[in-house]
Amino acid sequence: MDDAIRIDATRALSSAVGEAHGVAEAELDAIAPRVRQLHGILAEERATAKYGFYDLYKDTDVIDRVKAEADRFHAMGYENLVVLGIGGSALGLTALHTALHPPYYNLRDPKARDGRPRLFVMDNIDPTTFAQMMRLCPPEKTLYNAISKSGETAETMLQLLVIIEPLERAMGKDGVKDHLVITTSPDRDRVPNAPISLLRPVAKKYGLTAFDIPVNVGGRFSVFSQVGMFPAAVLGLDIDGMMAGCAAMDARCGQPDLHANPAYLRAALHYLLDTRKGKTISVMMPYADGLRSVADWYCQLWAESLGKQYDLDGKNVFAGQTPVKALGATDQHSQVQLYREGPNNKVFNIVEVAEFSETLPVPNTLQCVPELEYLRGATMNKLMAAELQGTVDALTLSKRPVIRVTLPRLNAGTVAQLLYMLEVETAMAGRLYHVNAFDQPGVEEGKRIARELMGADC
Amino acid sequence: MDDAIRIDATRALSSAVGEAHGVAEAELDAIAPRVRQLHGILAEERATAKYGFYDLYKDTDVIDRVKAEADRFHAMGYENLVVLGIGGSALGLTALHTALHPPYYNLRDPKARDGRPRLFVMDNIDPTTFAQMMRLCPPEKTLYNAISKSGETAETMLQLLVIIEPLERAMGKDGVKDHLVITTSPDRDRVPNAPISLLRPVAKKYGLTAFDIPVNVGGRFSVFSQVGMFPAAVLGLDIDGMMAGCAAMDARCGQPDLHANPAYLRAALHYLLDTRKGKTISVMMPYADGLRSVADWYCQLWAESLGKQYDLDGKNVFAGQTPVKALGATDQHSQVQLYREGPNNKVFNIVEVAEFSETLPVPNTLQCVPELEYLRGATMNKLMAAELQGTVDALTLSKRPVIRVTLPRLNAGTVAQLLYMLEVETAMAGRLYHVNAFDQPGVEEGKRIARELMGADC
Repeated sequence: MDDAIRIDATRALSSAVGEAHGVAEAELDAIAPRVRQLHGILAEERATAKYGFYDLYKDTDVIDRVKAEADRFHAMGYENLVVLGIGGSALGLTALHTALHPPYYNLRDPKARDGRPRLFVMDNIDPTTFAQMMRLCPPEKTLYNAISKSGETAETMLQLLVIIEPLERAMGKDGVKDHLVITTSPDRDRVPNAPISLLRPVAKKYGLTAFDIPVNVGGRFSVFSQVGMFPAAVLGLDIDGMMAGCAAMDARCGQPDLHANPAYLRAALHYLLDTRKGKTISVMMPYADGLRSVADWYCQLWAESLGKQYDLDGKNVFAGQTPVKALGATDQHSQVQLYREGPNNKVFNIVEVAEFSETLPVPNTLQCVPELEYLRGATMNKLMAAELQGTVDALTLSKRPVIRVTLPRLNAGTVAQLLYMLEVETAMAGRLYHVNAFDQPGVEEGKRIARELMGADC
Repeated sequence: MDDAIRIDATRALSSAVGEAHGVAEAELDAIAPRVRQLHGILAEERATAKYGFYDLYKDTDVIDRVKAEADRFHAMGYENLVVLGIGGSALGLTALHTALHPPYYNLRDPKARDGRPRLFVMDNIDPTTFAQMMRLCPPEKTLYNAISKSGETAETMLQLLVIIEPLERAMGKDGVKDHLVITTSPDRDRVPNAPISLLRPVAKKYGLTAFDIPVNVGGRFSVFSQVGMFPAAVLGLDIDGMMAGCAAMDARCGQPDLHANPAYLRAALHYLLDTRKGKTISVMMPYADGLRSVADWYCQLWAESLGKQYDLDGKNVFAGQTPVKALGATDQHSQVQLYREGPNNKVFNIVEVAEFSETLPVPNTLQCVPELEYLRGATMNKLMAAELQGTVDALTLSKRPVIRVTLPRLNAGTVAQLLYMLEVETAMAGRLYHVNAFDQPGVEEGKRIARELMGADC
């Protein structure tokens, strides 16, 4: 694949930043057998379908249905697509949309959007934001997609209660099905072991189109399931390109040797840097505006998967690196001072786009300022690349470990490779930390208290 | 002042989260004399105008000129305001705009914006983003504000080189002054000790309106200077309300006793939590979409001010807490798992807006789902408040220290209070860490390398 993404870990090694802050080749070699063994466990669990995220891209039946339904809804000509969803139901789609659509997408006129709808991802319950969204998106011009695996997510269900009344008033009870799609656990008539979803009775009442969230796919691993793919297809994103990207990365990630497997190499480096070199923070810093929401998506994936009080043997471990999002070059002017001079407790993931879709040349102007000569005749692209290199070099000088990830360009295939790699990396990291990367028991208590404050019988 | 913001530190004390993770009252009492003494130093430095940020709100001449010029430009009826600036030249305005204008501001029609322009803050050098901005903002309908203290900021100056040619082509050389305003170091004709700015010759060439960045005000402390106030005034934000908020908070922050001074209490808590309780990360988590950019602004302020290799005696200290932005309620579904169960290495700043500008009632609908009864008849506002309380309580149960900040509502006065308090807090924290909170030597090396890669004589 021409567009294969590349990993350069040399600046994270002790040869670049010293024994105290970098990983020695010998440490990598020493952990390689364990990675190989853990690969065996993960491969077996994959084979028995314990986790579904690995194989989502292979399910052509599902993908074909998603595309067909998206085409059908697209033909109805909506001005707005409003996603009601939070956490994993929102971050994946937002990452894909931000990476693959031009900036300021919602401001473009419909023709420049190829007739595709504007996108509003309602991933919070700020009443000011939600009220404004409702003013901008009248029900008759809007397609809603409510996403919740259990249908119990308070935020999403409250949003649904708020929009369904004006929607039914505007379109009539029979018209609701043309404006609301749900994505939730499978119906028990079809999948007997599926958990009950409170969205199913809503689907039944209005005869809604419904998409399944597979029982073995958790929210933060759901981007390539119907959760992410249906709205992505409505937005006209290149689903086939994404599936090809997943397949290409799956082929690379099938290799048990960490030297051949970018996800395992990254998992091992992060694990060793955290547990042996005190790098308790993992900074995800793309040098491309389009990847800023990928950083948000990564922050959920990494935090929620590895942040665990108990390990697989029930031992208290309080594990987990803290993920931090930064954006180059802009955050050089806000965070790099700390990154270089503050505590040496971070590993840096610098993500590069080698070739942007636009090239902006710098005109030969403002001769009244001779000091700007070095910029004239260059391109904005060249400055972005130079700033990235400057930051990598400066961090190295300060003995801060850097892993560089290069996307040849930003398209459906490369972004899918990146997300798929990070998912496999997270699964392997969970095994290295010896924690369950696929649950989130720590969020229950806050939810319980909130429900109680709302007057629910808990 | 009715709108006084409130601080509740009880959940950060050892009485709430235990000796190992919270600050004991005795520790606060013990550090109070040092805070009082450091207050003396800061007050003296303020009196000798070493730092200018404290008194910006008092400079009525400047504020009057900013408002008058903003009115003059507003009367010309621009469709777009484009700010060219990075770091401190961008984050303050973005914070104010996001907090004080309704969400989806740029999507509103001109009437709903009171005839004020759309805002584009160009704080990066992504060529795709910049090219799209140029397509959306034709020069004849656009006011540019280029902001750089030295005029040497590569990103901002490159942006200026890119926009000035089409601007001059469209408007003629004489027309440029109606579309470009600069904000930079004072002219040396007026302020002889001012550093030379490369933007001054540009201003001279085109006869541009120019605003001063006071010599004693650094980028990250510049929000209430002309840097933030001119574009804020063009956008129609309530400058007088902000100045009143600064004055109200200055009165509270003038008190040397940390028990009476919210900024000093917060500075002392953060310092003690970092250096004695291992809370190396400070999470800023507002529960209001409008405050999400305030969190970004704080991340620069805290990181760049305190992240220092050397202390004031030249000793190697590698100081600095790592600030992290989160947003409630949404990040409960991405970060709270880590926050509760991961390493106990964080202090949480939970920022609450007691009363939102909108109230969204939940209709009595979807009776087919009896499990949603607890939401019907409630409001979205009530759920937001319950989620906040649930998170605070759950964090407390896990012995994670929380400082709660309450804004009675979101307006110019309360937001200004918040920002001003955080500035004073940062100045005191710098003194407690015994570092220079007002420089940023660590960013120079990366800049030098980037310039070299661009072919400049360094």
